[in-house]
Amino acid sequence: MFKATIDADILKSSIETLSVLVDEARFRISTEGLSVRAVDPANVAMVSFELTASAFDDFAADDCEIGMDLTKINDILGVAEKNEKATLELDELSQRMSIHIGGFSYTLSLLDPSTIRAEPRIPQLELPAEVVLNGKELQKAVKAAEKISDHMSLGVDEDIFYMEAEGDTDKVRLEMPREQLIDLKSGEARSLFSLDYLSDIVKPASKSNEVTLELGRDYPIRISFTVAEGAGKISYLLAPRIESD
Amino acid sequence: MFKATIDADILKSSIETLSVLVDEARFRISTEGLSVRAVDPANVAMVSFELTASAFDDFAADDCEIGMDLTKINDILGVAEKNEKATLELDELSQRMSIHIGGFSYTLSLLDPSTIRAEPRIPQLELPAEVVLNGKELQKAVKAAEKISDHMSLGVDEDIFYMEAEGDTDKVRLEMPREQLIDLKSGEARSLFSLDYLSDIVKPASKSNEVTLELGRDYPIRISFTVAEGAGKISYLLAPRIESD
Amino acid sequence: MFKATIDADILKSSIETLSVLVDEARFRISTEGLSVRAVDPANVAMVSFELTASAFDDFAADDCEIGMDLTKINDILGVAEKNEKATLELDELSQRMSIHIGGFSYTLSLLDPSTIRAEPRIPQLELPAEVVLNGKELQKAVKAAEKISDHMSLGVDEDIFYMEAEGDTDKVRLEMPREQLIDLKSGEARSLFSLDYLSDIVKPASKSNEVTLELGRDYPIRISFTVAEGAGKISYLLAPRIESD
Repeated sequence: MFKATIDADILKSSIETLSVLVDEARFRISTEGLSVRAVDPANVAMVSFELTASAFDDFAADDCEIGMDLTKINDILGVAEKNEKATLELDELSQRMSIHIGGFSYTLSLLDPSTIRAEPRIPQLELPAEVVLNGKELQKAVKAAEKISDHMSLGVDEDIFYMEAEGDTDKVRLEMPREQLIDLKSGEARSLFSLDYLSDIVKPASKSNEVTLELGRDYPIRISFTVAEGAGKISYLLAPRIESD
Repeated sequence: MFKATIDADILKSSIETLSVLVDEARFRISTEGLSVRAVDPANVAMVSFELTASAFDDFAADDCEIGMDLTKINDILGVAEKNEKATLELDELSQRMSIHIGGFSYTLSLLDPSTIRAEPRIPQLELPAEVVLNGKELQKAVKAAEKISDHMSLGVDEDIFYMEAEGDTDKVRLEMPREQLIDLKSGEARSLFSLDYLSDIVKPASKSNEVTLELGRDYPIRISFTVAEGAGKISYLLAPRIESD
Repeated sequence: MFKATIDADILKSSIETLSVLVDEARFRISTEGLSVRAVDPANVAMVSFELTASAFDDFAADDCEIGMDLTKINDILGVAEKNEKATLELDELSQRMSIHIGGFSYTLSLLDPSTIRAEPRIPQLELPAEVVLNGKELQKAVKAAEKISDHMSLGVDEDIFYMEAEGDTDKVRLEMPREQLIDLKSGEARSLFSLDYLSDIVKPASKSNEVTLELGRDYPIRISFTVAEGAGKISYLLAPRIESD
């Protein structure tokens, strides 16, 4: 059993955090909310997503797992107008989800969860450095790097968070000292990442005022932020590339 | 003889109601105004268009028939700024139309009307149900259906106007009860239409606050609305598709 | 030696006036400012560009000549926000230009000036007619002509500046009498120009309130305007096409 009502905008931004990495996802539903863990087809990035029952106006659910086509839901949520509510209701017998938004009733066939890639195990990582900044600033840095290269380094050097990208002939570097950041925990950190992934991930992150980056030396980066006033939590883990000297 | 001045915006929206179905049209000019009847190349939809002399600031004409390339006129009207007037003047000898808009003078070769498809006969139809609604609402319903399928059903069920679209696996339904409509005349009505045509037709209709739909059981739909404060009348007739069960 | 700070917007619009004709340019730097003269690959249009030291907030330079990739600089200047400053600094040893904008530091490899086409000689021309008009009006005329043809005539007839374009079947003419112009010096003038070039040139010109056109009979047109409150001067020379009767 699953029946829930939520602000369509919140649901839309939540789905978008997943759809930058995967087209289909297994949603784990419990009395406490929804959660998804997914890894992209190339095994480079992973997303861990949680939307607690408190993000919903109404929420009633038993434990279950369903598969959904994210592109379809994104499309459907596109009809919602500002401040409209979306009501989801699962029909377990027919394996269909009905979605009601502003007079429209959609009936969507679910995907068989067993056909969707299994949930990844989230690795335990000790990431020494931590940077908290505005999502828009992060997106701007990624866009600047894209003009020069298809990889970018992110690192911490004492009281400075920096990013650097180097093309065949040109280079760009951005330094953000502690006072331009919301928070900085210094530590040894510098890793190279593919801009393909970073630019997808910073799209949803750019809507958040507070994005947390956790970094290490040639280690994955963890990029996390919340939605729905903290009731939704998104965390990406992106594997580093090997930096050639 | 034909010489007339009109608000360029009104002329532009009028031409657009035709150009969603055909690229060239025969305009019938009389002392009472302009009129066009055209059928699309596949014989699925028909438009009947009328712009009476009162829609014009100045209007002087003898009976005649001219052929025009709608894409060219649309292009030309694109240079008009808000509230600018367009003056049309026919040169019968050279078979050219001159169009003056804000300092620009266009001279456009007319098409030989005999090379343009003949006017269709408008069939006499008894359409039992009638729905009047805002054009934007109609467009929204069509857009929602397009996400699921390439056909949609429109029907009336007692006090409810509904639309429904069904894809291979998914379904959408919108119900609008009488109180959400401007007017409803109930009657037996449900027909299936191609979304290709409907989405073209609702583009000009979406600018109108009052669009009238006339419907029957597996019958064509008539979609009508006015422009230029009632001085222009547009009416589409769209053939139904066969609904397979 | 070259080190200078300037409003990023002014630099951006300056670079754009060059990039409509060429992808790479030789910048001549002196104590008085920057200047560029370039001719397009087909030898049809030429631009002469000057940005005096007074356009800069800070400007320190010795005489030198550098080659730059205009697309790259355009890209980089795209990260600038409203009212942000750009600081350029030349590293002569490594032949690199560093560009600082709002926290970002770009290091750009310069091009060897000897690989870029030599500066054209600006021909001495006696152009009898002169028209001064708003850049937006000029752009509108060019856009109107593009709907009909790929060439347009510009000319002066007594107190009227006119433009005309003729397609296979259709024609457009715009007349601007002296009172619609900022200034008019009458003289014998009518020449035909390729719209490919004109529409590129009017893009930067359209941002200027005062664009000066100098014209003759089957002669090149000179299109000039200023940026940075007169501290920057741009002048295009566009060769005429042969008008067939």
